[in-house]
Amino acid sequence: MSVYTKVSPEQLAAWLKRYAIGSLLELQGIADGIENTNYFVTTTQGRYVLTLFERLRFEELPFYLNLMAHLARHGIPCPAPVADRDQSLLGALNGKPATLVTRLSGAPVFDPGERHCGQVGAMLAAMHLAVAGYDGTLENPRGLRWQRQAAPQIVPFLDDSLKALLASELEFQAQQRVEILPRGPVHADLFRDNVLFEGGGDGTTQRIGGIIDFYFAGIDTLVFDVAVTLNDWCVDAAGNIEPGRARALLAAYQGARALTPAEREAWPAMLRAAALRFWLSRLHDFYLPRPGELTHAHDPEHFRRILELRRAGAFALPSGPLP
Amino acid sequence: MSVYTKVSPEQLAAWLKRYAIGSLLELQGIADGIENTNYFVTTTQGRYVLTLFERLRFEELPFYLNLMAHLARHGIPCPAPVADRDQSLLGALNGKPATLVTRLSGAPVFDPGERHCGQVGAMLAAMHLAVAGYDGTLENPRGLRWQRQAAPQIVPFLDDSLKALLASELEFQAQQRVEILPRGPVHADLFRDNVLFEGGGDGTTQRIGGIIDFYFAGIDTLVFDVAVTLNDWCVDAAGNIEPGRARALLAAYQGARALTPAEREAWPAMLRAAALRFWLSRLHDFYLPRPGELTHAHDPEHFRRILELRRAGAFALPSGPLP
Repeated sequence: MSVYTKVSPEQLAAWLKRYAIGSLLELQGIADGIENTNYFVTTTQGRYVLTLFERLRFEELPFYLNLMAHLARHGIPCPAPVADRDQSLLGALNGKPATLVTRLSGAPVFDPGERHCGQVGAMLAAMHLAVAGYDGTLENPRGLRWQRQAAPQIVPFLDDSLKALLASELEFQAQQRVEILPRGPVHADLFRDNVLFEGGGDGTTQRIGGIIDFYFAGIDTLVFDVAVTLNDWCVDAAGNIEPGRARALLAAYQGARALTPAEREAWPAMLRAAALRFWLSRLHDFYLPRPGELTHAHDPEHFRRILELRRAGAFALPSGPLP
Repeated sequence: MSVYTKVSPEQLAAWLKRYAIGSLLELQGIADGIENTNYFVTTTQGRYVLTLFERLRFEELPFYLNLMAHLARHGIPCPAPVADRDQSLLGALNGKPATLVTRLSGAPVFDPGERHCGQVGAMLAAMHLAVAGYDGTLENPRGLRWQRQAAPQIVPFLDDSLKALLASELEFQAQQRVEILPRGPVHADLFRDNVLFEGGGDGTTQRIGGIIDFYFAGIDTLVFDVAVTLNDWCVDAAGNIEPGRARALLAAYQGARALTPAEREAWPAMLRAAALRFWLSRLHDFYLPRPGELTHAHDPEHFRRILELRRAGAFALPSGPLP
């Protein structure tokens, strides 16, 4: 999207008086992002991101903001919501729920190698360890419940073979015993554009500077989050899993958090569930865009292919001792 | 000091398992600091500082750690204590209370100009605004109560003129009505070595990257904190106030938080109180060093001179509208 809700420097300068972060130096709209209006905000004290929420409602936001605050407090490099002088992480600006978070450094890497995938796997495991003790509850907003609601709206747009694929996969997923898998608040959208890497000049190693965009997070199984991440980081343009990168991600993940036997057993189904979730949401965004949507919808076909590939055969988890 | 308590990489790697911050890459002792053992810690996930407390007791530490966490949450660039997987900010390592905090970037500036002093004044005001709502209670550990206990131990080492100066100033301070002044948790030691500036290469402006060393913080009057800061940042080598830097600090402070009439009236006495506090603590450290103290004590004479200068005449607060 581009910026949905206009904020003038004068409006923001007045609004910033509720915080203790100095005075406004610069305000700059951010063109990226699908769901929210984002601005870079520079004050005399530091660099922040202002987010106005266009889709999420006030009552949903504490889950996200408190989750980011919890993760930041545990050393995860994620945007940390800034509390205002009344201790609130959430305010309202121009009629929209609004928050200010710390700005992280780095940029996405769109052609990741094994090293990047290893770092992402380790960071994902660290997040799964760090959420222990977080007591917020919000079901994955694009979980199976949403998928069952969205499917009937999408079916009229699909040809018979796609209808059959969707029905078959929904039925398969309904049979999985996800309730025996470890659950928690998961990012659920840890794609390449949501990990910022810094460094890399002068032959130095690139390192993760930030994990961003938690606004699809929710309670789901941890192994689903691993599958979502692998389906993006470790595939070629056609959606085939690239074994070197997949092994790097999984080994680093399991170096910090070993998958349980139940998770290992669920793995092939989870790779399919992760593909289904994005195929469905992209179909939904494509055929049923929200009014006023400015963004280009992502291509649903990419995840249809990935789903078909994962149905045909999963990437086997490395067995034996991990590096 | 140099490092008091040895920590081996093996010990630390085991200890870090309580956190979700990746695995240890590098451990490096820090020679600075008077009261604690500090190490730089680099993990696969980021850069941290490990502190083992040599003077402070377990029961005193929550005040400091929660204060830093509170300020960080409000956007103040201070070390943020990292919570372990049991949600605790405080652990024990090699028999000492220990904590891990985020590492900030930048380096102290020891020849500050008006710009630096302005930024310090603005940051101090932001901290005084941000502490509202912090409910920790710990009296300034070097406040008037400590001073009255320490004075009799120091008196035997002083000649008659210094004894008279100390007695006179303690009596003067006892007469001040500090109870009518706004109070709160204050840094109380915001000297040049506790502010990190970053940038400044290629003609860019230096900006504050971090405020560090909160381990002399406590509840005291806000204007005392301003006086402590000014007595260090805005003086020449002889302790004379340099008017340009003092005006820059005070104008920036009052741009964010105006001093009350009572604070303005107390100002000359507060400049003296701030000088007395450091004269006394330096005398104490000089004549009564702790057993095993490795550090060089700071010269008490510097603050004796400052005290005499402030008794002879205060730097008047700028009146009229501030820039």
